Amino acid sequence: MGEQTVSRRGLLGAAGIGLLFGAAGGAGAGYAASHAATPADQAASTAAVPFHGEHQAGIATPVQDRLHFCAFDVITDSREALVALLRKWTDAAARMTAGQDAGPGGAVGGIPEAPPDDTGEALGLPPARLTITIGFGPTLFEKDGKDRFGLRSRRPAALVDLPHFPGDKLDPARCGGDLAIQACSDDPQVAVHAVRNLARIGFGVVAVRWSQLGFGKTSSTTPSEQTPRNLFGFKDGTNNIPGDDTEALRQHVWVAPEDGPDWMVGGSYLVARRIRMHIETWDRAPLAEQEQIVGRTKGEGAPLGAAREHDPVDLAKLPADSHVALSHPGANGGLRILRRGYSFVDGSDGLGRLDAGLFFIAYQRDPRKQFIPLQAKLSARDRMMEYLQHTGSGIWACPPGVRPGEFWGQRLFA
Amino acid sequence: MGEQTVSRRGLLGAAGIGLLFGAAGGAGAGYAASHAATPADQAASTAAVPFHGEHQAGIATPVQDRLHFCAFDVITDSREALVALLRKWTDAAARMTAGQDAGPGGAVGGIPEAPPDDTGEALGLPPARLTITIGFGPTLFEKDGKDRFGLRSRRPAALVDLPHFPGDKLDPARCGGDLAIQACSDDPQVAVHAVRNLARIGFGVVAVRWSQLGFGKTSSTTPSEQTPRNLFGFKDGTNNIPGDDTEALRQHVWVAPEDGPDWMVGGSYLVARRIRMHIETWDRAPLAEQEQIVGRTKGEGAPLGAAREHDPVDLAKLPADSHVALSHPGANGGLRILRRGYSFVDGSDGLGRLDAGLFFIAYQRDPRKQFIPLQAKLSARDRMMEYLQHTGSGIWACPPGVRPGEFWGQRLFA
Repeated sequence: MGEQTVSRRGLLGAAGIGLLFGAAGGAGAGYAASHAATPADQAASTAAVPFHGEHQAGIATPVQDRLHFCAFDVITDSREALVALLRKWTDAAARMTAGQDAGPGGAVGGIPEAPPDDTGEALGLPPARLTITIGFGPTLFEKDGKDRFGLRSRRPAALVDLPHFPGDKLDPARCGGDLAIQACSDDPQVAVHAVRNLARIGFGVVAVRWSQLGFGKTSSTTPSEQTPRNLFGFKDGTNNIPGDDTEALRQHVWVAPEDGPDWMVGGSYLVARRIRMHIETWDRAPLAEQEQIVGRTKGEGAPLGAAREHDPVDLAKLPADSHVALSHPGANGGLRILRRGYSFVDGSDGLGRLDAGLFFIAYQRDPRKQFIPLQAKLSARDRMMEYLQHTGSGIWACPPGVRPGEFWGQRLFA
Repeated sequence: MGEQTVSRRGLLGAAGIGLLFGAAGGAGAGYAASHAATPADQAASTAAVPFHGEHQAGIATPVQDRLHFCAFDVITDSREALVALLRKWTDAAARMTAGQDAGPGGAVGGIPEAPPDDTGEALGLPPARLTITIGFGPTLFEKDGKDRFGLRSRRPAALVDLPHFPGDKLDPARCGGDLAIQACSDDPQVAVHAVRNLARIGFGVVAVRWSQLGFGKTSSTTPSEQTPRNLFGFKDGTNNIPGDDTEALRQHVWVAPEDGPDWMVGGSYLVARRIRMHIETWDRAPLAEQEQIVGRTKGEGAPLGAAREHDPVDLAKLPADSHVALSHPGANGGLRILRRGYSFVDGSDGLGRLDAGLFFIAYQRDPRKQFIPLQAKLSARDRMMEYLQHTGSGIWACPPGVRPGEFWGQRLFA
């Protein structure tokens, strides 16, 4: 590597930042406090999230503030090249989530005239709770009838192609992808750096299909936090699955042995939907009407008919076509999904309006029993649909976590 | 207003957040620390920046972490409607930068069936150093030969139309605009909220022409901070004009009485350029070559031939076609501009690459003597141009600051 190579870890050490940001406890009142309730949460905002484990990080992990999501196409038919890439990506992800540089993952790394091992824009920044989560799309198993990687027989039954839902206005340029990477961090520079370096390492094997930045989280998996608000101005995810509720995660999020296939046990299915919100129209609706559409009050976030945000929902007191009435577990046989969505603004639409909305992300044990029936119902009956347009979509199988030395999807390719 | 109206201030008070986030001094070690050097800087990240003053905030103000920039077209020919809008916008900006809701700026505010006075997504969030800065574009003074608002004779001579520069690939949908709003904050939700509420208040008078989010600052005006890095991975803005250097600001940024016109004295000219960076190509260039192109080392950010970032630049030791050699004040008769740019990622380009780059923002006393000659030189000779493409552009005259009771541009309309 030599003097020419820049090491993120080295710089962190040199500047003493490792120490500074590792400090927890009494420090406080920083930026993270705007989204966090406890001093521990606040101090966590620059810390590292463990990469290895039974499950991939970035699913039950407390939701970070910012997102860079990227769908990739595999542009080779070589199974060996794909496996080699997954090995390099796993190593790079382990390094970057620990606050180190991406490492010598590139094909040309380590030789004198080579590009640097890392693109550099995160030098000196702490890990900022970076998580990198991978998913395998249906087209990795079969594309245009072709079994490029010998994986057709290993496709999980639950990894279905999503059906068309009423009102879908999907843009093919924002749909699908053989691989998906969800990078979440409290610092967007760190999330962008992660995606960009995985793309760099994957040069010649993968190409970016589409990519989405999320500037602010709209759901929390940490009930003690202040619930974030979406671009309709309402608290979102009040009844989300808590990231530390092992029993709820087991029941609704993690693939169990009896679900199969073996290589997915401990994994989860990711559904992402880019949902354009017609905020200009919404902003002209009276407050009382907005609350009838949502089923909660705007300020407090209380279910209609109740006083406080976390009061129980009384379905009899909500309009039948309100979002909460239709999506509440009590109206869906206990159905729940773990939400991890982010707000986005992607410039404007050429018609005088912001191109803004919610990049919806949900994790679940079986989309056939969770997202699909729920969205079928909402898209047909939710009064909020008048203000929404689904413009992007994807589904991916996220394998379980890895142990040191393993690579993402190792059991799939075994 | 009544019970139906949601007040951001009220909620802040109720939650005690005003106190919590107003606290300065000993608190520390929060998120802002990743970009800030001193405890005072860190504590400032949730605080309010004063709105009123001799100059508009958001120019010499220490650069915040996030940006939402928006160019608007005025869609009426009524001078009265335009002035009424500027009054409402000024009031709303004063409120929002203080952490309050946008206020009853809408035409229908305050009546029972009206939409809320604020869109709500910033409820409970601190001001997070929000600044809102306005600029008037050339087309406000004359558009298609038409003097819609009786302002033609008041157009500043320095508010020229920018010339075509070599290599420009400008997209008309990302250029110009009668009005520009630069909203900067350490919380992107707060910046987006500000732009969105100004658009809401302006319904029927203005329409969004284009809009740009910046996820991370690339320049600092606070020399004590760690210098941020752009998407080439290099520190950017090491020699930027410090926001507290009154003499440099007087000389290079603020319009002086001898410059005229009267209504612009204390103001500044804003040039914005959306610069696509071909990061995938850049990432395949050897480190030594990257450093020759920039004229600084990547890790430390030292000028070539020197050891430390803030060592003086010795132009004789830099390649003549390097970015620093061409843009350094010493090579341009002392020419300086105040930079306030942000990195962006706007999805992908459909060709397997991220649509990423730098949203360049510069403030100056006279673009005819500052940005234009500098960019003419760089676009013709800077070796870095091989990796850049200018895809958006605009110039605006930013009037001076306002006193309580005044509105933005009041002296222009007097």
